[in-house]
Amino acid sequence: VRIVVDGMGGDYAPKAVVEGVVQAVKEFNVDVTLVGIQEKLEAELKSYNYPKEKIQIIHAPEVVGMDEHATVSLRKKKDSSMTVGVRLLKDKNYDAFISAGNTGAVVAASTIYLGMLEGVERPAIGLVIPTVKGLSFLIDVGANADPKPQHLLQSAQMAHVYVRELLGREKPTIGLLNIGEEEGKGTDFHKETYKLMEEKLSNFIGNVEASEVFSGKSDCIICDGFVGNVVLKVSEGVLESAGKLLKQEIKKSPLALTGALLMRRGLNHIKKLADYSEYGGAPLLGVNGLVMISHGRSSAKAIKNAIKATKREVEQNILTHMMTEVKRIAL
Amino acid sequence: VRIVVDGMGGDYAPKAVVEGVVQAVKEFNVDVTLVGIQEKLEAELKSYNYPKEKIQIIHAPEVVGMDEHATVSLRKKKDSSMTVGVRLLKDKNYDAFISAGNTGAVVAASTIYLGMLEGVERPAIGLVIPTVKGLSFLIDVGANADPKPQHLLQSAQMAHVYVRELLGREKPTIGLLNIGEEEGKGTDFHKETYKLMEEKLSNFIGNVEASEVFSGKSDCIICDGFVGNVVLKVSEGVLESAGKLLKQEIKKSPLALTGALLMRRGLNHIKKLADYSEYGGAPLLGVNGLVMISHGRSSAKAIKNAIKATKREVEQNILTHMMTEVKRIAL
Repeated sequence: VRIVVDGMGGDYAPKAVVEGVVQAVKEFNVDVTLVGIQEKLEAELKSYNYPKEKIQIIHAPEVVGMDEHATVSLRKKKDSSMTVGVRLLKDKNYDAFISAGNTGAVVAASTIYLGMLEGVERPAIGLVIPTVKGLSFLIDVGANADPKPQHLLQSAQMAHVYVRELLGREKPTIGLLNIGEEEGKGTDFHKETYKLMEEKLSNFIGNVEASEVFSGKSDCIICDGFVGNVVLKVSEGVLESAGKLLKQEIKKSPLALTGALLMRRGLNHIKKLADYSEYGGAPLLGVNGLVMISHGRSSAKAIKNAIKATKREVEQNILTHMMTEVKRIAL
Repeated sequence: VRIVVDGMGGDYAPKAVVEGVVQAVKEFNVDVTLVGIQEKLEAELKSYNYPKEKIQIIHAPEVVGMDEHATVSLRKKKDSSMTVGVRLLKDKNYDAFISAGNTGAVVAASTIYLGMLEGVERPAIGLVIPTVKGLSFLIDVGANADPKPQHLLQSAQMAHVYVRELLGREKPTIGLLNIGEEEGKGTDFHKETYKLMEEKLSNFIGNVEASEVFSGKSDCIICDGFVGNVVLKVSEGVLESAGKLLKQEIKKSPLALTGALLMRRGLNHIKKLADYSEYGGAPLLGVNGLVMISHGRSSAKAIKNAIKATKREVEQNILTHMMTEVKRIAL
């Protein structure tokens, strides 16, 4: 498996990215090509022992900032680590591309250079999330903030394939994220999407309320990119705020500190509810190539786990499955 | 202060409602008229000692179910506890109406019978939320799932008045809930709303990401009713799931149980992050009357606290403030 990794993407790049890549090539059977400013990547690599033949560097002189406007950066920086990385993937020498950089720019570069799968009109970012019952898949968490009903149907079809192949569910259930369980809830957009899904998807279980996202009620939870992003960030924010409150309490009381130590296992379990470094990345689905988007705050561990998850995607031929099955059930 | 309370509204009605009302009239200087099926309310009241002159019952033979379609129920049940309650408020003998019943039906009944404030086109439900820094105000959490930009502007104007008068902030800040901080983020709807707010509101601080809702970054956080409902329910869901995971862990280990006991204060603090019974209700703003919506799962304590919060709204003349100020800055 040969993976291209954006060496300059993410808040802690290139340091965390390089460290994660080194760990990955040692642990998994994978070759990585790091794309970015050569001297910076070389300087980081110097501090590690690793099998030299497994990490290659390809120079890309430009870097897309985390807050840059996606399409502007694409137009102005044709030789950024991101665009060079995506083009390498397109040229078929590589199996996948991973970036923890500016999400909008990764989506835009992938869409433009790789094109879309037949039968899919818009890209969508999926996310494997931990729930009380096990893993679920939330899509879209931010690629397309203002989709049409058929885009959500296409996301559902892709989610179905992804969850079946990668999470090993034989017949994954599909739910539409909505503000009530009954049919007829939500905006016209949601009502129309509901009808379409009911007609086209045999495993559609209806609306799922936001309170059920982390209860594991549905294997796949489908929503627009605006709402998905809100779900993701609210859950991060709530757990972060809860953590802060707990720390304040612990500072005030030695008893509470003792309590926290005794409960460490349980508290770590909860932390994982919002710790996306466990899975490592969010697949960008719909484009004609395997692209994995890592969290902007990715640690070395997150990068390593993104490589692991991406390697599994390659080995399971996830792209081929999507190409054949999504096309087959297109409108 | 004279308040009408929907005796039949909520999952635990009439029991929890009656209990909360009894507690309220004992603790606060307030008169309550309970509306609902007379014999059921009388049967509940029998078990309590309370100052008889402070609780009155007005019979309403019909009950709106929690999952009934709002407008259908309004048309078919003209004598439900909800519609009778709202009409009592309209006839000016009362200061406010509180219901823990079907939210959609409360919104519809209030809009139809009370009408809108001048300068406000659509109702919105506000919610006082606990954050790391203190209380903030999230609006709309579910009245209007598909608003226009000017509706969000009007919500912001009402939120400003509410937070100033009820939470005592002199110059409350206003943020637009969006999927990025920079101007130009989100859908066309969000971009347009941003421009409008920047032009019309002197205390607009720009976009606020969902991860910042519970950090206390902005006093007022403005969003459409779909997204606000998602924020509310995701935060409930995350904390509920976290609680379940913690309980599983505690069951497995006596040490963890000891830990939990030692940390009880801190854990209770966190629970309050999603415990809306603390504030007790969500004001329905924009209609020409004081209406408070309580959580469907309201306990007696939640009802009591809703009466307390509503009493303060009456005493602060919140409706008069809104009438004069929102009109003054209308488009």
